[in-house]
Amino acid sequence: MARDNAPEPFDAVDIIRLKRDGSPLSVEHIDWIVDAYTRGVVGDEQMAALAMAIFTRGMEPAEVLQLTQAMIRSGETLDFSGLGKITADKHSTGGVGDKITLPLAPLVASFGVAVPQLSGRGLGHTGGTLDKLESIPGWRADIANDELMEILRGPGCVVCAAGSGLAPADRKLYALRDITATVDCIPLIASSIMSKKIAEGTASLVLDVKVGSGAFMKDESLARELATTMVALGNGAGCATTALLTDMDTPLGRKVGNALEVEESVEVLAGGGPDDVRELTLALAREMLDAAGLRDADPARALDNGQAMDTWRGMIAAQGGDPDADLPTAMHTHTVTADQDGYLATLDALAVGVASWRLGAGRARKEDPVQPGAGIELHKKIGEPVRAGEKLFTLHTDTPERFERALETLEPGWSVTDAPPRARESVIIDRIAVDRTAG
Amino acid sequence: MARDNAPEPFDAVDIIRLKRDGSPLSVEHIDWIVDAYTRGVVGDEQMAALAMAIFTRGMEPAEVLQLTQAMIRSGETLDFSGLGKITADKHSTGGVGDKITLPLAPLVASFGVAVPQLSGRGLGHTGGTLDKLESIPGWRADIANDELMEILRGPGCVVCAAGSGLAPADRKLYALRDITATVDCIPLIASSIMSKKIAEGTASLVLDVKVGSGAFMKDESLARELATTMVALGNGAGCATTALLTDMDTPLGRKVGNALEVEESVEVLAGGGPDDVRELTLALAREMLDAAGLRDADPARALDNGQAMDTWRGMIAAQGGDPDADLPTAMHTHTVTADQDGYLATLDALAVGVASWRLGAGRARKEDPVQPGAGIELHKKIGEPVRAGEKLFTLHTDTPERFERALETLEPGWSVTDAPPRARESVIIDRIAVDRTAG
Repeated sequence: MARDNAPEPFDAVDIIRLKRDGSPLSVEHIDWIVDAYTRGVVGDEQMAALAMAIFTRGMEPAEVLQLTQAMIRSGETLDFSGLGKITADKHSTGGVGDKITLPLAPLVASFGVAVPQLSGRGLGHTGGTLDKLESIPGWRADIANDELMEILRGPGCVVCAAGSGLAPADRKLYALRDITATVDCIPLIASSIMSKKIAEGTASLVLDVKVGSGAFMKDESLARELATTMVALGNGAGCATTALLTDMDTPLGRKVGNALEVEESVEVLAGGGPDDVRELTLALAREMLDAAGLRDADPARALDNGQAMDTWRGMIAAQGGDPDADLPTAMHTHTVTADQDGYLATLDALAVGVASWRLGAGRARKEDPVQPGAGIELHKKIGEPVRAGEKLFTLHTDTPERFERALETLEPGWSVTDAPPRARESVIIDRIAVDRTAG
Repeated sequence: MARDNAPEPFDAVDIIRLKRDGSPLSVEHIDWIVDAYTRGVVGDEQMAALAMAIFTRGMEPAEVLQLTQAMIRSGETLDFSGLGKITADKHSTGGVGDKITLPLAPLVASFGVAVPQLSGRGLGHTGGTLDKLESIPGWRADIANDELMEILRGPGCVVCAAGSGLAPADRKLYALRDITATVDCIPLIASSIMSKKIAEGTASLVLDVKVGSGAFMKDESLARELATTMVALGNGAGCATTALLTDMDTPLGRKVGNALEVEESVEVLAGGGPDDVRELTLALAREMLDAAGLRDADPARALDNGQAMDTWRGMIAAQGGDPDADLPTAMHTHTVTADQDGYLATLDALAVGVASWRLGAGRARKEDPVQPGAGIELHKKIGEPVRAGEKLFTLHTDTPERFERALETLEPGWSVTDAPPRARESVIIDRIAVDRTAG
């Protein structure tokens, strides 16, 4: 959107001052500043001041929608309208053991819905979907646009890296927020997530907003506010959006780590796997199938009868992976056993996530490699009976010098008590959809 | 203060986050971030986010003092202890027609006090002291350090440009605040002014904090808060500091512009001049003489008997100027006359300041020249009787095409009424000093 030396219609200082003093910004202000920031006319120092002003003063829903749309317009958007299939997408705010995309995408695609999952790599204690799938021999995340369309026409689902052309303003702003303490701000989080998702051109979206120690949002009311904001944004931008608020106080499933999570995903695709992973996969599939108009589709049956597994094999093969290849395993393991009878009373998601990260499953810097086999098996979940000497956890790594710090991290994260604790009944806390009565 | 690759003790993001969430910063935090910003380790975008967080969350008095001291330590400081004279300094927050430094510095110096006035150039509607003195043929603002000491030993007062070595952190932060809407924030204004003034090494300081339409602070309570903050800061840093809160709703004196203000200053030094200029000069002189321990000195007498004028002539000559030379005059004038009998009821400082700036007395960009002869003569002050056809204003410029816009600006700034208005009795609103009873 270069303007060939045309004078700029606004001065960034005036816009920053307005927000600083608590006023809402107009459509024209937001459109201009996002565009001017993308062009480099508005500098990082000005955008940092504006981000901090937004952090402290907030934004009205109309401003957040405008910011989202301006970031979408800063780059290219994908268009799946020529595909001849309905598209559906899922986004999770990230958690420990959250491998749901792996069984979910082929499950939904097996009903003829196109599921393009543009994903990221992990940074910090929550793993990245691309890192997980890359533990499958031959599988590659870099898919050209025409290849993407071909796979969506065929198996129907793709998990790949998002191109740098989508929402470049968001990419630039996200990097800036990271170094200016303006990350944890609902208008900025919501517009960042939704601008990328909407630029990806899906017709519908279900959000998995995690709450708890292992999640970005520790507090349920904030998570609810984020979910509500994003649902409003998505629907406001013409993308049918719902959200599930789900528990992340304890890890999802029994396996945390890259290849370990692929292994567990395949168990779910084979009709088995841990109850919580199956439950959440089915709940999210229900949202996506409903949004695609397939109210009669039976996702539980598709897990049990191999229909979803067939699509998984097709997807992996289409991206160069061998679905029959053995998955990599770590060279060293260390087992933690119980020293008393009782019940597993606590199992903290953050402790498990950080311990797994320390074992090599995650990376400290963007350019670091991950160990495909590293991670933690959870032999017991909260509420399960434990006998003295029984295995609680198996730690996996290629670098055994890491066991010590991983164990230190894990130790305060679990406890065994005499009486059974109150275990959660469902991983799903709430469902958030647009209020049709209000519209 | 380079540290040869030693690890940094803090992460800027943590410090920004603390202030963002409303916590006070520690001595160590403030010292480090100012030093790291000066070294370039903390970037402009991080300092911009911190400045905005300070803007919205404020700072406690201890933090403002620490910020001031850290900015002083970021560069060199002047040391007048070897001079054999007591030093006294004055700082004005800037106003229209504010030429007080010109008569004040030689007046105080004529009693044997050293008055080093490190000043700036004007930007915007308030003129710069250096611009005014530069209208005197031969006079130069650039004085080397040894020359400065020599002049302080001799005539006793110097008005010169501040070196770039004083408080470089403030210089950098000030430029940043200008483009990030974080200028009008009392902790940042107070620490900026006081870091420069304290780095100048004076033993005492009197602040002239202006309030009103032509001042930076339009609101009396904010001006009072700024004055109180700066008085506390100065005394906290060991510099005896008082402040006068003075009126800037209407211009000071009867002449606005560079050479015009020199002319009026010479009138005051000759024992004449407008009442308000003489009053404020004497009040500020009283503060400076008291701080220097000269309670018996009689500044009014020194204006009336030529003692201050002698020092003025010495100071101008010491900086290369010719005190007897004719001052430059503008090539064109335009006179505004009254169209009715009555009293001048309003005369707005901002309107006069901007009109004078438009005539060429001020500059739009740092690198622009100023017209020495441009400006406005005010033939009537508020409350004075006016007869139809009598002169109200004379506008001066070298570029007569500027008359039109200057007149447009001036027009809504004055009015003549039938009944006499309530004119202000004194230009001084209040005096602010450290509360000795509280200490």
